[in-house]
Amino acid sequence: MYITRRERFNAAHRLFREDFSNEENLKVFGKCSNPMWHGHNYELFVTVKGEIDPQTGFVMNLKTLSEIVNEFIISKIDHKNINLEVDFMKDKIASTEVLAQTFFEILKPQIEKHNAQLHCVKLYETENHYVEYFG
Amino acid sequence: MYITRRERFNAAHRLFREDFSNEENLKVFGKCSNPMWHGHNYELFVTVKGEIDPQTGFVMNLKTLSEIVNEFIISKIDHKNINLEVDFMKDKIASTEVLAQTFFEILKPQIEKHNAQLHCVKLYETENHYVEYFG
Amino acid sequence: MYITRRERFNAAHRLFREDFSNEENLKVFGKCSNPMWHGHNYELFVTVKGEIDPQTGFVMNLKTLSEIVNEFIISKIDHKNINLEVDFMKDKIASTEVLAQTFFEILKPQIEKHNAQLHCVKLYETENHYVEYFG
Amino acid sequence: MYITRRERFNAAHRLFREDFSNEENLKVFGKCSNPMWHGHNYELFVTVKGEIDPQTGFVMNLKTLSEIVNEFIISKIDHKNINLEVDFMKDKIASTEVLAQTFFEILKPQIEKHNAQLHCVKLYETENHYVEYFG
Amino acid sequence: MYITRRERFNAAHRLFREDFSNEENLKVFGKCSNPMWHGHNYELFVTVKGEIDPQTGFVMNLKTLSEIVNEFIISKIDHKNINLEVDFMKDKIASTEVLAQTFFEILKPQIEKHNAQLHCVKLYETENHYVEYFG
Amino acid sequence: MYITRRERFNAAHRLFREDFSNEENLKVFGKCSNPMWHGHNYELFVTVKGEIDPQTGFVMNLKTLSEIVNEFIISKIDHKNINLEVDFMKDKIASTEVLAQTFFEILKPQIEKHNAQLHCVKLYETENHYVEYFG
Repeated sequence: MYITRRERFNAAHRLFREDFSNEENLKVFGKCSNPMWHGHNYELFVTVKGEIDPQTGFVMNLKTLSEIVNEFIISKIDHKNINLEVDFMKDKIASTEVLAQTFFEILKPQIEKHNAQLHCVKLYETENHYVEYFG
Repeated sequence: MYITRRERFNAAHRLFREDFSNEENLKVFGKCSNPMWHGHNYELFVTVKGEIDPQTGFVMNLKTLSEIVNEFIISKIDHKNINLEVDFMKDKIASTEVLAQTFFEILKPQIEKHNAQLHCVKLYETENHYVEYFG
Repeated sequence: MYITRRERFNAAHRLFREDFSNEENLKVFGKCSNPMWHGHNYELFVTVKGEIDPQTGFVMNLKTLSEIVNEFIISKIDHKNINLEVDFMKDKIASTEVLAQTFFEILKPQIEKHNAQLHCVKLYETENHYVEYFG
Repeated sequence: MYITRRERFNAAHRLFREDFSNEENLKVFGKCSNPMWHGHNYELFVTVKGEIDPQTGFVMNLKTLSEIVNEFIISKIDHKNINLEVDFMKDKIASTEVLAQTFFEILKPQIEKHNAQLHCVKLYETENHYVEYFG
Repeated sequence: MYITRRERFNAAHRLFREDFSNEENLKVFGKCSNPMWHGHNYELFVTVKGEIDPQTGFVMNLKTLSEIVNEFIISKIDHKNINLEVDFMKDKIASTEVLAQTFFEILKPQIEKHNAQLHCVKLYETENHYVEYFG
Repeated sequence: MYITRRERFNAAHRLFREDFSNEENLKVFGKCSNPMWHGHNYELFVTVKGEIDPQTGFVMNLKTLSEIVNEFIISKIDHKNINLEVDFMKDKIASTEVLAQTFFEILKPQIEKHNAQLHCVKLYETENHYVEYFG
């Protein structure tokens, strides 16, 4: 049984490498490398896997799942600059792929404390683009 | 090849255990345990798996799939009280997880009569919460 | 300039008149008159009209608007039975129209305290049905 | 007859006044005043009003409308920092209201060149918040 | 008070004038003039205006509204070729504007039989394009 | 790591077999067999699987993925008659299943040129119906 919770955050970012020139960044990352930043309304879907607890009918209390995602992810990234202000993205490329992978690594041990397993982190950057990471 | 049909229903429910006090129910199930009921617009996605029939180009006739879901699920739960009026939920906790699992068990033999296999039941309770069950 | 805030609530209700027999209620209100209740995920859009404050660039602070809608509407109706538990719907028919009109009357004086005018209350009951009330 | 075209852009911004201290900005604009920026996927709906041209069945050629919006708005703001890089927002507060009003003023004369009138600019900042400006 | 019902239909069409050459049609209507047809999932929103009936809490019974739209519009256009098979579109350009205007003229007298007024027909051709007609 | 790109196209089609009579086609394919065609707004989701390139933070450049889908699929099917004008659908039944399978076979070798693997083609025909093919 899989249960999924959606959370949202708005953030600024840019895609670039410090060891690239502006021209190289533009070539590889296009307009996403704009040095003055741009931003997105991100949608995050966190999917947890487990058995139904016969006592509650739940795989995991949805309120608990929401609190974990808010405490460890949303509160640290919402209305922030991903490249400059988010500790867990320091020295990483702020691509959707790297974000999803990083969220997965952060959430996995927190969810395991509640007798469930993190199955998937799905992250939408725009309505035309999303990534999924299964660990 | 996987083919998915969406159906919708509106129903009232509450989450609670008869062997719990009101305080215990409130603690475990929060405002979802309100004894006076609340309700949802549920969205149900039924995914069927099979080979493409070279005669029709179909895995399964979508009209047949829709009729099965309506006959065995929607007609019994739409505009109903899940706890009080739905036979297949009798003495069960009316959580999204238990609903999805019960729908799966009901639909599986019906779909197998049509040379296809039930792959997944996905059920949205709100835009921020859904479950998936694969049997 | 018009500014709109979306809020959501889940509630149980039924459409009926006490002075009608069950048969009359069923004839007029159809399956929505089920005496055991059913429910919906309601979506509420509150639109406020005003001049842009040159100091802030706002017609009205969105956080204030959200707090008003939550204090006077959402906290009283979310996860409730509209017919039995919501004071402002007492002795009223729990139709989408009457809900929208009642919300408008409640919100209007609250929003006027903030130098803005309530323009419209829009209420979705399902993805196929909404009402709008302009006072 | 009214015809509407949707376009989208992603941008970074912050809400603040240079003549406010950081504390004042935080008090008035909340987390939207973060000095390091945040961003959004904006959705822009441009509504044009006119008679149906009996020759074409169109109020206005949708391709032309899309080209106008892209030339005068999207190409200047997409993947940009609204406060720092967008000429028409210079020295303005980058609120949704001011954006919509500015877009309206820019688009109005361009659309009037095509025998139609700009009726409304509607701008979504998040799924829970939009503004409408009618000139 | 305004009440809106959504209905959907899928149809083939092309935009063209018989008195134009293929080149002229291509110039004016672009790829929408393809002589072999293309098609859309149309979404139709019909908005009715009236007083709330104190007996029912309704402006108009939603089931009645849906039946009218289905009898006079959907059953005649769904899964059809708009240019070749739909009587009320004969000799008309199959643009979204002309469709909406025609639907309005057809629905107006039917809705007036039920003590309500047709306020608006809104028609989506794609997620990026819709028209509204108010009579 | 999985990355998905959405593209859209509008097309006309019908479901039928030349070796069936009109009556047989109507019996098997229902109104979808209308000889005068009907059409849809199709939504296509292409999911690619691969390792994150540490140089770019990408599984695959999204612009490249979009260009491939547009060159090999969208440009050939958008605003076309699937049965009559699309080479890769010649002599095939124009069902959603066969479309998805055919898209998969076309896209697979193109995506493999970019050090990634095609994982899934998901195709929506209406909001109530989609198919998925994994090869």
